Amino acid sequence: MKFSLVHTDAAARAGLLETDHGVIETPIFMPVGTQGTVKAVEQRELIELGAQIILGNTYHLYLRPGLEVLRSMGGLHRFMNWQRPLLTDSGGYQVFSLTELRKITQDGVTFKSHLDGSSHFFTPQKVVEIQRTIGSDIMMVLDECPPYPCDETYARESNALTVKWAKLCQQAVRDIPPYYGHHQSLFAIVQGGVYKHLRADSAKALVDLEMEGYAIGGLAVGEPADVMYDLTEFTTRFLPAEKPRYLMGVGTPENLLESIERGVDMFDCVMPTRNGRNGMVFTRNGRMNIRNAKWKMDDAPLDEGFESYTNKNFSRAYLRHLFQVDEILGLQLASIHNLSFYLWLVKEARTKILEGSFAPWKKEMMERLAGQL
Amino acid sequence: MKFSLVHTDAAARAGLLETDHGVIETPIFMPVGTQGTVKAVEQRELIELGAQIILGNTYHLYLRPGLEVLRSMGGLHRFMNWQRPLLTDSGGYQVFSLTELRKITQDGVTFKSHLDGSSHFFTPQKVVEIQRTIGSDIMMVLDECPPYPCDETYARESNALTVKWAKLCQQAVRDIPPYYGHHQSLFAIVQGGVYKHLRADSAKALVDLEMEGYAIGGLAVGEPADVMYDLTEFTTRFLPAEKPRYLMGVGTPENLLESIERGVDMFDCVMPTRNGRNGMVFTRNGRMNIRNAKWKMDDAPLDEGFESYTNKNFSRAYLRHLFQVDEILGLQLASIHNLSFYLWLVKEARTKILEGSFAPWKKEMMERLAGQL
Repeated sequence: MKFSLVHTDAAARAGLLETDHGVIETPIFMPVGTQGTVKAVEQRELIELGAQIILGNTYHLYLRPGLEVLRSMGGLHRFMNWQRPLLTDSGGYQVFSLTELRKITQDGVTFKSHLDGSSHFFTPQKVVEIQRTIGSDIMMVLDECPPYPCDETYARESNALTVKWAKLCQQAVRDIPPYYGHHQSLFAIVQGGVYKHLRADSAKALVDLEMEGYAIGGLAVGEPADVMYDLTEFTTRFLPAEKPRYLMGVGTPENLLESIERGVDMFDCVMPTRNGRNGMVFTRNGRMNIRNAKWKMDDAPLDEGFESYTNKNFSRAYLRHLFQVDEILGLQLASIHNLSFYLWLVKEARTKILEGSFAPWKKEMMERLAGQL
Repeated sequence: MKFSLVHTDAAARAGLLETDHGVIETPIFMPVGTQGTVKAVEQRELIELGAQIILGNTYHLYLRPGLEVLRSMGGLHRFMNWQRPLLTDSGGYQVFSLTELRKITQDGVTFKSHLDGSSHFFTPQKVVEIQRTIGSDIMMVLDECPPYPCDETYARESNALTVKWAKLCQQAVRDIPPYYGHHQSLFAIVQGGVYKHLRADSAKALVDLEMEGYAIGGLAVGEPADVMYDLTEFTTRFLPAEKPRYLMGVGTPENLLESIERGVDMFDCVMPTRNGRNGMVFTRNGRMNIRNAKWKMDDAPLDEGFESYTNKNFSRAYLRHLFQVDEILGLQLASIHNLSFYLWLVKEARTKILEGSFAPWKKEMMERLAGQL
């Protein structure tokens, strides 16, 4: 993997991330394909709407279809017929979310499957082995993601565990060669809760490990947006300019713009697809609840002049009807549109960074995005 | 509308049905788009898989989005962005299925909406007005579809009502001009239960009305397949060769082939989409339950060498996984595949009729279709 910083505009960065499955233009948003499919969107539609990399969830893929199937099918790229880059999380976040069902030790985390209650043990080595089996282009280290709020002592101890596990993951990557012939990078995850000195400690310790990329974890977990922005800005200062930076699980269109301005290169979030399935549509002029009666006879597209399959072919009235009558096509069209919007947003951000006009464009977009249609 | 019989092969017919929205090659299968969308399939995918005409359900469209929306949006073609032909039923079949909620008189049928219990009254004139508002290329008369079994007296009286209503629908078509500038044909529906002389009476009375096309109704309602085939064969004898024949609500791939052999030109059925959403996949070598554990690591496509988006891009193992984890993409891919299969089947049948080799091909296909993968 090779990351090149093409241009910077204040702290905002335009880069190129080269993987064996293709080049990713950053800043980039990664649609979430938890179980080997981005919900309600076909693989060819992901290509059409400009997805350059998608995300899979290690926890879910480990449970179903499971390692035996993934290995025998030649990995996730081949299994789901997605030939562009894939990133997988480590499964840690999902496992730690099973608060009643898991137990953490220095060695790893024991958890019970949410499906059948069966017991499993994830160690740093194990999550690397699973991600080798998935074959993701970018693998994430096993980390502990502390809850919000969390006290300083917990955050400090958690930090130490995350650094220890990052080293073990790095060693496991050396010990277990890739199965499918392509290179798989390993990214570390900066933690530290809301404590700046702990964020700095975490970043420094992980930077010393010379990982291929760095994620900022433990944000967008309930803290105010301002705190998230402040911690993101603070944390990026400690990250090397020549490595990609990934803000995990973020976020709204506004979150993306604020974070791009603070030097983040990569994002993932279920919001465009999940909200889309709930009838919430993103446009350049703010959000709309497509179920609202006011769209009943509105013949206009969701976002006049915007390029998406949904937008170019169907009216607000038709979308509203599909949601009113619970038709699957509504879920499809809203998901396609929202992902198109997210991918447009980061592409446009990149263009503006390259032109050196990110700040004024971002200011204008923030005003437009605050609208409510 | 113009129907041309291009070629016959014994009783099997290859024709061309010309409408203002395009030419339909018969025999044809019409995917069902009950509420203004074929479930889980995009409009562009219907084009891709060869759908030449789709069906909408008057009862559902009348309730939602309702006439006001349909009229203000310029009809269903424009509302759902489908520029090929549309056929609508009269709503009669759905209304009569509401056995507890409806009351039939000589004038029409009063029913309560399954959605909110509101009362509505469908008359022959009303269903024409609704279908004018929908703007379907082919409208169906209001008919009474007797249940199976039903006694001869009931079937005879029902016949009389259906003929009376057909005349009233025909008059209404003359009285109410089309709203959107294109021609809309009206087809009558032959009823008569399982009584051949009543089928003959019904057909003759309706043929006297010189309708633009004839449907065979009241079949596939629970009677044995042999009875359906026998009645279809019997009924088509009384229908004019120069008019299209539509066997409503039928059926399995085998039903289609048997009925094409007996002179039917048009079919509709929810089976390919509904069964697809339940994980039942049609192939040239029989059906498969894609949830079956035996597909867990089967890297082959559903139907080797078959042309469908699903088949060309995804394995049985991947489809099985999608159904195992309840992903929407599974519903999409199975529906696309099954509709592709149905459209392939009728297209292939047409080719064989044109070549004069329908019977041996049909015999071979019936054997293959009987398989269970």
